Amino acid sequence: MSSTVITDDTLYLGVDGGGTKCRACLVSSSGEILGVGLSGPANPLHGLTRTLASITEAAEQALESAAVSPAKMNEIIAGVALAGINLPGMFAAMKEWQHPFAEMYLTTDLHAACLGAHRGGDGAVIVAGTGSCGFASVKGESVTLGGHGFLLGDMGSGAWMGLEAIKAVLMAEDGLSGSTELVDKVTDIYGVDGLKIVETMSKASSSEFARLAPSVLAAAVAGDEVATTIVKQGAGYIDRLAKKLLLLEPPRLSMLGGISAPLQKWLSAEVAEKVEQPLDQPEMGAVYFARERHKERISQVSAVV
Amino acid sequence: MSSTVITDDTLYLGVDGGGTKCRACLVSSSGEILGVGLSGPANPLHGLTRTLASITEAAEQALESAAVSPAKMNEIIAGVALAGINLPGMFAAMKEWQHPFAEMYLTTDLHAACLGAHRGGDGAVIVAGTGSCGFASVKGESVTLGGHGFLLGDMGSGAWMGLEAIKAVLMAEDGLSGSTELVDKVTDIYGVDGLKIVETMSKASSSEFARLAPSVLAAAVAGDEVATTIVKQGAGYIDRLAKKLLLLEPPRLSMLGGISAPLQKWLSAEVAEKVEQPLDQPEMGAVYFARERHKERISQVSAVV
Repeated sequence: MSSTVITDDTLYLGVDGGGTKCRACLVSSSGEILGVGLSGPANPLHGLTRTLASITEAAEQALESAAVSPAKMNEIIAGVALAGINLPGMFAAMKEWQHPFAEMYLTTDLHAACLGAHRGGDGAVIVAGTGSCGFASVKGESVTLGGHGFLLGDMGSGAWMGLEAIKAVLMAEDGLSGSTELVDKVTDIYGVDGLKIVETMSKASSSEFARLAPSVLAAAVAGDEVATTIVKQGAGYIDRLAKKLLLLEPPRLSMLGGISAPLQKWLSAEVAEKVEQPLDQPEMGAVYFARERHKERISQVSAVV
Repeated sequence: MSSTVITDDTLYLGVDGGGTKCRACLVSSSGEILGVGLSGPANPLHGLTRTLASITEAAEQALESAAVSPAKMNEIIAGVALAGINLPGMFAAMKEWQHPFAEMYLTTDLHAACLGAHRGGDGAVIVAGTGSCGFASVKGESVTLGGHGFLLGDMGSGAWMGLEAIKAVLMAEDGLSGSTELVDKVTDIYGVDGLKIVETMSKASSSEFARLAPSVLAAAVAGDEVATTIVKQGAGYIDRLAKKLLLLEPPRLSMLGGISAPLQKWLSAEVAEKVEQPLDQPEMGAVYFARERHKERISQVSAVV
């Protein structure tokens, strides 16, 4: 099958890679979801080899669950959405991959999330999961905010909340700040107390820090002062991110990611009232992206011929 | 030579390992410095193998510069001071080392710095270099504050200032906070601008972040608002650390480390007026520590015999 022809039986694969999971869906040319796949971490900033393995595994699962032969992988038009692919070095590294698909179109996880949330249309999204970031695509212009990774950014994210909580616990243990019930939460979650948390967490991944986030949010709701300070600071950043995106007047705004629901009550009323449920998943957004780009590419090829 | 006898020609080696350098000095039983050594990083939290190599190299240099035969290494009483050795796992790992000395006494870099700064006597120290921490030893009681490492603590340190500056630069580039002249400083120092800083710095070491600290301090003095906020926040933590140590009524308080001098003007008058120059270097403190512990040990052995 030539990849420069779109037929009724063209299959599209959407892949959404994240810090903890990689999701894939196989979609018919009419937009019907035929199969899905789920594998492990696929954030190229944390390791390219593991990312490629997770993408391949999720894709294979999607074909299998759709009862499509693995031999058809090289006929599929894939849209692959990854964190960090906006960084020039990462994009170049991914382009070098000898992928198993007929065609592979790369975009950011944010762009796919936005296309998914607004069913392929214009809009804005804020992701607050392990990491945090904002994205809007309106009238052909797009803006990305944040998404600078665990160490340098990701304020208001789950990993950031976990890290700030552990810093606060160590500060409290030194008697340099107020006591907090987060001390007990850290012991519950990581099975260590006191100074041992330094050994356990000084090289921990962002996902491990993010495990603490639900406890930080719960402690803030229960009135713990230290937790409240952390959540307010994080939500304040997410709020600034949202206001900046709303300046572009996107028709819709959605929030995605594991802590987006509990974060909403900490946002300003102005932002909170604009937030709407996403319509489709990010991996479906990756399909919308691939379908659009593939059509463009074929029309260009046709124009040349 | 038996290590259970102290003679006039007993030689002591003091080693001070840090995140960027490892210093050693060879000292006679009368306290005269006979030779010195300087090697690379020796922070066991960043790598035990490199730490052991740096200690050995600095020790060999110290013997060589004192014109003492390398064959005499196994007659030397060594005091080795390391960051992170207060963590149970690290202490156990270092104790397993088949070291080349007659005896090796391990303590924290902070304890050695304090013994050095106060010529073996009681006192308190604050280290503000690549990392940050506080230590006091008064009337047989000691207190360690901070020193939790780059990711989880080290507030007010050079690495922390560099990290906060890069976060602020990325925030400013997203239009989510005020503009700052630190944007230009980052470009000057790391040779990258815009989003490329994420790729360059997302896995950088604490030492690489600390390279930016002098520019942050200078920008704060020049009135840059973002830099001033960072420096005030960091100095505020160092100030709380100092006040907590002063509660123990140490006879002296010294500040050590690469950014301790420029930080002092940002401290409260109450703390700043107590700060005195250190009397000796930390590696000399490691000698004071080893000499004291070795005497105690021999007197215990004698008591048993």
